[in-house]
Amino acid sequence: MISKQMQTQVQNSSVIRAMFEEGKRLSAIYGEENVYDFSLGNPSVDPPGEVKTAIFDILNNEGKGSVHGYMNNSGHETVRDAIAHSINARFNTSFSQNNIIMTVGAAGGLNVILKTLLDPQDEVIVFAPFFGEYKNYVSNYNGNLIVIPADTASFQPNLELFKDKITARTKAVIINSPNNPTGVIYSEATIKYLAEILNHKQNEFGTNIYIISDEPYRELAYDNIEVPYLTHYYENTIIGYSFSKSLSLPGERIGYLVIPDQVADGEDIIAAANIATRILGYVNAPSLFQLVIARCLDAKVDIEAYNRNRELLYNGLKSYGYDCIKPEGAFYLFVKAPNNDDVAFCNLAKQENILVVPGSAFGCAGYFRIAYCVSYETIKNSLPGFKALIEEVNIK
Amino acid sequence: MISKQMQTQVQNSSVIRAMFEEGKRLSAIYGEENVYDFSLGNPSVDPPGEVKTAIFDILNNEGKGSVHGYMNNSGHETVRDAIAHSINARFNTSFSQNNIIMTVGAAGGLNVILKTLLDPQDEVIVFAPFFGEYKNYVSNYNGNLIVIPADTASFQPNLELFKDKITARTKAVIINSPNNPTGVIYSEATIKYLAEILNHKQNEFGTNIYIISDEPYRELAYDNIEVPYLTHYYENTIIGYSFSKSLSLPGERIGYLVIPDQVADGEDIIAAANIATRILGYVNAPSLFQLVIARCLDAKVDIEAYNRNRELLYNGLKSYGYDCIKPEGAFYLFVKAPNNDDVAFCNLAKQENILVVPGSAFGCAGYFRIAYCVSYETIKNSLPGFKALIEEVNIK
Repeated sequence: MISKQMQTQVQNSSVIRAMFEEGKRLSAIYGEENVYDFSLGNPSVDPPGEVKTAIFDILNNEGKGSVHGYMNNSGHETVRDAIAHSINARFNTSFSQNNIIMTVGAAGGLNVILKTLLDPQDEVIVFAPFFGEYKNYVSNYNGNLIVIPADTASFQPNLELFKDKITARTKAVIINSPNNPTGVIYSEATIKYLAEILNHKQNEFGTNIYIISDEPYRELAYDNIEVPYLTHYYENTIIGYSFSKSLSLPGERIGYLVIPDQVADGEDIIAAANIATRILGYVNAPSLFQLVIARCLDAKVDIEAYNRNRELLYNGLKSYGYDCIKPEGAFYLFVKAPNNDDVAFCNLAKQENILVVPGSAFGCAGYFRIAYCVSYETIKNSLPGFKALIEEVNIK
Repeated sequence: MISKQMQTQVQNSSVIRAMFEEGKRLSAIYGEENVYDFSLGNPSVDPPGEVKTAIFDILNNEGKGSVHGYMNNSGHETVRDAIAHSINARFNTSFSQNNIIMTVGAAGGLNVILKTLLDPQDEVIVFAPFFGEYKNYVSNYNGNLIVIPADTASFQPNLELFKDKITARTKAVIINSPNNPTGVIYSEATIKYLAEILNHKQNEFGTNIYIISDEPYRELAYDNIEVPYLTHYYENTIIGYSFSKSLSLPGERIGYLVIPDQVADGEDIIAAANIATRILGYVNAPSLFQLVIARCLDAKVDIEAYNRNRELLYNGLKSYGYDCIKPEGAFYLFVKAPNNDDVAFCNLAKQENILVVPGSAFGCAGYFRIAYCVSYETIKNSLPGFKALIEEVNIK
């Protein structure tokens, strides 16, 4: 009696559920410390101390009604003002609180903007490999997801293939940099070319095509690499941000959308996104954590911990003969399955108590994703297993 | 370029937006204390002290990762277990944590269960007057809302009209008791007859029809009136609960669904609701406040403050000649517009700096809603205005 759409969802989710159950089964047999669970993007680094300080300060010094009560569906004005100022200072933009809508994480923000923009059958383009949930978010509003196959040489978006897939029904393009699952940062040259193509196609079709830039990993960039701020390169850019990774608060569901005045029909989009926040049942982003993040806009998690993990894991895997690109950001490594079959390899890895996710889940078969937001010890102790796995595959 | 559905939403919302702007305009002229804003159901009573104590205790004594990190999409197991035990003890039920899904308030829970159940064109029945957002929630999943006209004598659901509106496409009935906007509590006799009708119709059509019981006001019942626990009366009952009013935490977005094992296809519904929580972009209910409410299940707000407001307002309005039923719960009074035109009367009320909401917004024209979750002073000072309004109408 559940809906047909949800019947399909329940069937498909059984793979991930099976992995979750397998992890619990292995932990029960071998002990949790001997199972190397690289399946989830759950930050291993603690939130910065400023978070706790902010909570105590707010509860001790602000009126209870304003801390826990309703506010404008778009969020507390003071918080949105603080965010706008912070972005302006960092990226040389000129946003006001009117351009900021507080959201229930990046996932909530993406749903709000897709609800706002999509008519049924509108097309949304993504570049493989991509975060698998985009497919569900687009499907929630009866849109069609168009997947551009990966350029596996660089894992930059494949813009030559992209050109031919844009149609009069293309409403949006979702990009995600630093990228889940590859850790690649889209270069400025990529962004410029992407914008050039979109401007050309907007003229050709007489339409507006929005870039939705999903940026939960913006602050997780290594080696001082710059992550371009998209609104400078393409007018019709909307940004979705989350504090899940930047402040290690994924369970608290707090993020925001930036809808610049410069986007086509910006005023309507801002008004509609406010209403979409309400009618999708979010109503508003959680109140206390809105106030918290406004006090923590300059706080940072210990990204060096992720960087140490990255170096250890990448160098280890390369030395065993694995084929992968060194990630520039986020906390994922996207590795070629040595047997060329990602699902089979992920199953094989369970022999070594290693849990990783098949690239098929990201629209890119033949690869697997390692989420290295785990302890340094976990990575160190897993390396012999990775070595054994590639040796076993190579013998066959 | 926003979607057609959202274009309609933006147009329709302008009425409420206009009221909001009017409130700000009046406050600027007359001072905030001289504007009587009865338009919003934002609790005026502070959260109980246990909330702050719980937050401090959790932050001081629990590991940061488990406080702010991801958990199962359905919520923390310990929290769901505590809730199940609390319900079982209070209502003599036998739920386990498997029957509980933590949600982003009641609004999030309703969206999750409607996403889970509805195929396009499925029918969902509501009884006027009803919380206007139900229409949007059902529309989100392309369902059809069927409205049963009000029984204005009692404001109990009109079950005789209801019988004839149930079809083979009826998937769910949403009820809300204590009711927004009337404050009426649906009697045990009502519930029993409702269940009898539904059981009969399920047999007739060979279908399952779910009651979705929206219960944010369960704890706000006056004079020790019992609010029947629906799962005892009808097998296919799903309950949506929120702590927004019971603990005065509306901005924190925390609630839960109860999906009993006894409901038809219960196992599928539980699995699908877990996934719907994820793919609708909620991902999970806010983590810290899950932990907080588990420590506050026996805490209560000062309901006596609302009761004092109720008595003052009800007795005042009756003495001036207004026609209304005394509310048994929630913090709303639903009053007959003395000129029989709710929109005109609400506009007239602005002359007295009184902001109230037309019954049309709840599918019941000719009445208006007063949200008396304001200070006692606000009610006292507004009474001369209400008196002047009915005198003005009666002179005409």
